[in-house]
Amino acid sequence: MELFYTNKIVDNSAVLDQQETIHCTKVLRHKPGDIINFTDGKGHLFYGRLLESKGKEAGIEILRCETGADSSPYYLHIAVALTKNYDRFEWFLEKAVEIGVDRVTPLVCEHSERRVFKFERAQRLILSASKQSLKTFFPILDDIVKSHDFITTLVDYENTLLDNSANDNAHKNALKIMGHCRDGEKEAITSILGAAKGSWVAEIDKQSKAGKPHIIIMIGPEGDFSVEEIELALKSEFKIMHLGSSRMRVETAAITAVTAVYLNYLESK
Amino acid sequence: MELFYTNKIVDNSAVLDQQETIHCTKVLRHKPGDIINFTDGKGHLFYGRLLESKGKEAGIEILRCETGADSSPYYLHIAVALTKNYDRFEWFLEKAVEIGVDRVTPLVCEHSERRVFKFERAQRLILSASKQSLKTFFPILDDIVKSHDFITTLVDYENTLLDNSANDNAHKNALKIMGHCRDGEKEAITSILGAAKGSWVAEIDKQSKAGKPHIIIMIGPEGDFSVEEIELALKSEFKIMHLGSSRMRVETAAITAVTAVYLNYLESK
Repeated sequence: MELFYTNKIVDNSAVLDQQETIHCTKVLRHKPGDIINFTDGKGHLFYGRLLESKGKEAGIEILRCETGADSSPYYLHIAVALTKNYDRFEWFLEKAVEIGVDRVTPLVCEHSERRVFKFERAQRLILSASKQSLKTFFPILDDIVKSHDFITTLVDYENTLLDNSANDNAHKNALKIMGHCRDGEKEAITSILGAAKGSWVAEIDKQSKAGKPHIIIMIGPEGDFSVEEIELALKSEFKIMHLGSSRMRVETAAITAVTAVYLNYLESK
Repeated sequence: MELFYTNKIVDNSAVLDQQETIHCTKVLRHKPGDIINFTDGKGHLFYGRLLESKGKEAGIEILRCETGADSSPYYLHIAVALTKNYDRFEWFLEKAVEIGVDRVTPLVCEHSERRVFKFERAQRLILSASKQSLKTFFPILDDIVKSHDFITTLVDYENTLLDNSANDNAHKNALKIMGHCRDGEKEAITSILGAAKGSWVAEIDKQSKAGKPHIIIMIGPEGDFSVEEIELALKSEFKIMHLGSSRMRVETAAITAVTAVYLNYLESK
């Protein structure tokens, strides 16, 4: 199966942008009349008929629209420090999309060596990895944020939330996790996730309208989070996790955390 | 901490080979008299004093030898089909070493497009990833094997095992898992691993001398395992796993499996 992407959809017609048109008509040699699959990256899977090409953007007549089947039972937001070797961050992005993530924030921390983020390039990488793994929900990509601002913005946002909306409740009950290598009390990521899953089930049973469990994970740079960053996270109700005794690079720790969340909900698929 | 590697150890002296010597004395500028850490890749961590250099290989006087602290509570052997894009296989190797694996076999399957394996290069990659993540147990790397031969050799070997040795028992009770994308009955990898962990604990309690739990996992190529390969695996008592609904590339599936095993034993560290 091939999956194309466009955000230009009006009523029952859609238009592929220039790059997607080249991929569709030149690389994969689709002809007018062919039925193709495409998504808006927002959870919809469309089936449409390719129209006669006018100019550089191919038109599509939409025949059917379904809800994508790749909705996960949780909402995962991961904030990861940029890596010294930038390729490693991009590799993380690709793998995180494949395994499953809903939002990615690149962090600059007190001890970060790398502070430049290639947003457009990362956006293209997410698009291509999402299509490759047939996702109809594309993760949100943020621009770079200082770790301190990431935490304070999160807390400010939580304070604006109301009690009477399922989605707001999901945000308010978000499980916030930080990973660092300094000394201090830590819990295995599997224990943190397992315990939260249990309490969420209870919560959802009670309220029967709560949104998906929200999980927010922060992973620091090669030089680790600073003592101040860790203290701020603790004050903001982050739990501190450990990933066992293996010594991992930044991107390996990040992908291990994404995988831990994915596996924690594997049976509920 | 830096970790060097050598297999040239006699009594209380050791010699670094040319490449490790360059890394030690040129790149990191260690001088005679400096204390350095090194490993034999077989579970030993040595502390030694660098001697006056004679020629291209640095000598070391061994001061102390300890057992490495990175021994894992399981033995994981993963057999993965070479990927079409070879970089992706090498990326898998690096990450598998970081997270934890004991033996890697590159597979050629019926539907493999890639059939050439760069053994020496992979061996160097394992050495460098092991040193980077401070492992004193380096994984064993096999040369390329046909998937059919991999399974039959395994079964032949199991048939030679005796009942009265802990290590033989661990091999005989090995948990064999195959991942494929064809139709058929499958169990979530987390369920398979969780159930086996429970039964091993019972077994170890009973025998009080069984070796570590052995886990063998096979991951196929882009074109998937063939029906014949899957039938042979089933006949040879492999369990068929699924990795959930995410559509993963070969190397992503392989690293997800390695991570699933790692996380399954996280609390027992």
